[in-house]
Amino acid sequence: MKICIVGLGLIGGSLAIDLRANGFADEIIGVDIHPEHQREALRLKLVDEILELEEGTKKADLIVLTVPVSVIAEILPKVLDLINENQVVTDMGSTKSFLIEAIKGHSKKSRFVPSHPMAGTENSGPKAAIRNLFANRVAIICDKEHCDEDAIKMVEKMYKSLFMEIVYMNGADHDMHAAYVSHISHISSFLLANTVLEKEKSETAIFNLASGGFESTVRLAKSSPKMWADIFMQNGEHISTVLETYIKLLQDFKNKIDDKDYDYLFSEMQKANAIRKVLDR
Amino acid sequence: MKICIVGLGLIGGSLAIDLRANGFADEIIGVDIHPEHQREALRLKLVDEILELEEGTKKADLIVLTVPVSVIAEILPKVLDLINENQVVTDMGSTKSFLIEAIKGHSKKSRFVPSHPMAGTENSGPKAAIRNLFANRVAIICDKEHCDEDAIKMVEKMYKSLFMEIVYMNGADHDMHAAYVSHISHISSFLLANTVLEKEKSETAIFNLASGGFESTVRLAKSSPKMWADIFMQNGEHISTVLETYIKLLQDFKNKIDDKDYDYLFSEMQKANAIRKVLDR
Repeated sequence: MKICIVGLGLIGGSLAIDLRANGFADEIIGVDIHPEHQREALRLKLVDEILELEEGTKKADLIVLTVPVSVIAEILPKVLDLINENQVVTDMGSTKSFLIEAIKGHSKKSRFVPSHPMAGTENSGPKAAIRNLFANRVAIICDKEHCDEDAIKMVEKMYKSLFMEIVYMNGADHDMHAAYVSHISHISSFLLANTVLEKEKSETAIFNLASGGFESTVRLAKSSPKMWADIFMQNGEHISTVLETYIKLLQDFKNKIDDKDYDYLFSEMQKANAIRKVLDR
Repeated sequence: MKICIVGLGLIGGSLAIDLRANGFADEIIGVDIHPEHQREALRLKLVDEILELEEGTKKADLIVLTVPVSVIAEILPKVLDLINENQVVTDMGSTKSFLIEAIKGHSKKSRFVPSHPMAGTENSGPKAAIRNLFANRVAIICDKEHCDEDAIKMVEKMYKSLFMEIVYMNGADHDMHAAYVSHISHISSFLLANTVLEKEKSETAIFNLASGGFESTVRLAKSSPKMWADIFMQNGEHISTVLETYIKLLQDFKNKIDDKDYDYLFSEMQKANAIRKVLDR
């Protein structure tokens, strides 16, 4: 099978490594507008050749879009224009409703399978690509009832070859869930980093003291601003709802610290301990 | 050297492992009011014997307090009452000013070296004890000018035997720094966990989707409520200041998501990327 991967960053690059290693792909075509990404992807042997979007799309059985979500929304209609009735398109973006809406009038929309593998790291670019990024994670496929059966089958086969568990849901549910278990974590990290960086201006010694706990909570603050600003623009409504809850809980907690209300603080943290059941599965 | 470790949890237990392995301690006495911790500590051979606080204190050259900070403040005056002019006491609590204040009138206060090794994990109890917890981290010693020279030397020697870098500062500075690089990370995690757990009540599928990013940011939510409620009670003023900044940044970010202000979101995250210089040292 010939695959065209559009976007040779962490996700596209890691996908190329695994799909070649597991035999799912015989040939991998790379598309990326950044010349340095093109060079890196060839040097690292992530892809067999670099082509322009139009040429790459025409040559592949499966086209996978792994660019930021604003770019997916922009190029998906063009890619659908180019393909024939045997080719399949999927994406790996972190928002789904916006995208589904963007192609709802397209005559070939049933060749597109909206999907989202719940995997990643805080690093970006082809050099960040790693083996087994996707293994044992969940891949979400959205609105499958609007897709051709052979298209769904091909995308399912790809995710299964990566040892992913597939979960089905509609685009709106996906976007709500993603806001809770992914998008909010990134905002929390970005702004925790800014809180401390701001203080560091006057207190140069502060970071010598950072321990493992700090590193863990701010790790995601290294993530790509472009990728995440795009996601926040498209999934703003759900994210805003989650942020409102989070800010409310923080404000209540702060008030109770000010009141020295030990019992409230203890009981909120005891509640939070239930997260063990998720993390220690 | 005979050491008495008061509090056989993650910190006390890990300390016992390393100080025995590196030869700093010839004999380790354990003190803990929880019978199950006593049994576990003996079973895991963390300590040579379990004694009551009074007996353990009298027998040791160095007494290390690794209990929650409210308990340190409670027992430290008693321990100082018990020791002679050759014995040394230190603690490993996450707050310092409160403790220093608690013994400022004590005649033997110069035998006490207030300290804080910046190391830990989210796990608790003797079973959570691990080797090399402290290696390559910073240990803070506070208000050294109020301590006897031989007492400081003994505590420095202990931290150096653990491969820690020692930093000196006053108690108030310590508490402010700790609020920024440790305490706030825990609050952020605890309440992120609660935000998502609340939602999960109505959405049972949500956690299937949690990816590595989520796990990293909420890991600290598994931490001990007792330990942290104590810290928040004693360091409330500094923590409240940091939380105020954090909440303000979150509220601004939420407003700009609502306004779809791409440039603001992008630039805030780009600022946050500077955290790399701390994490990738």
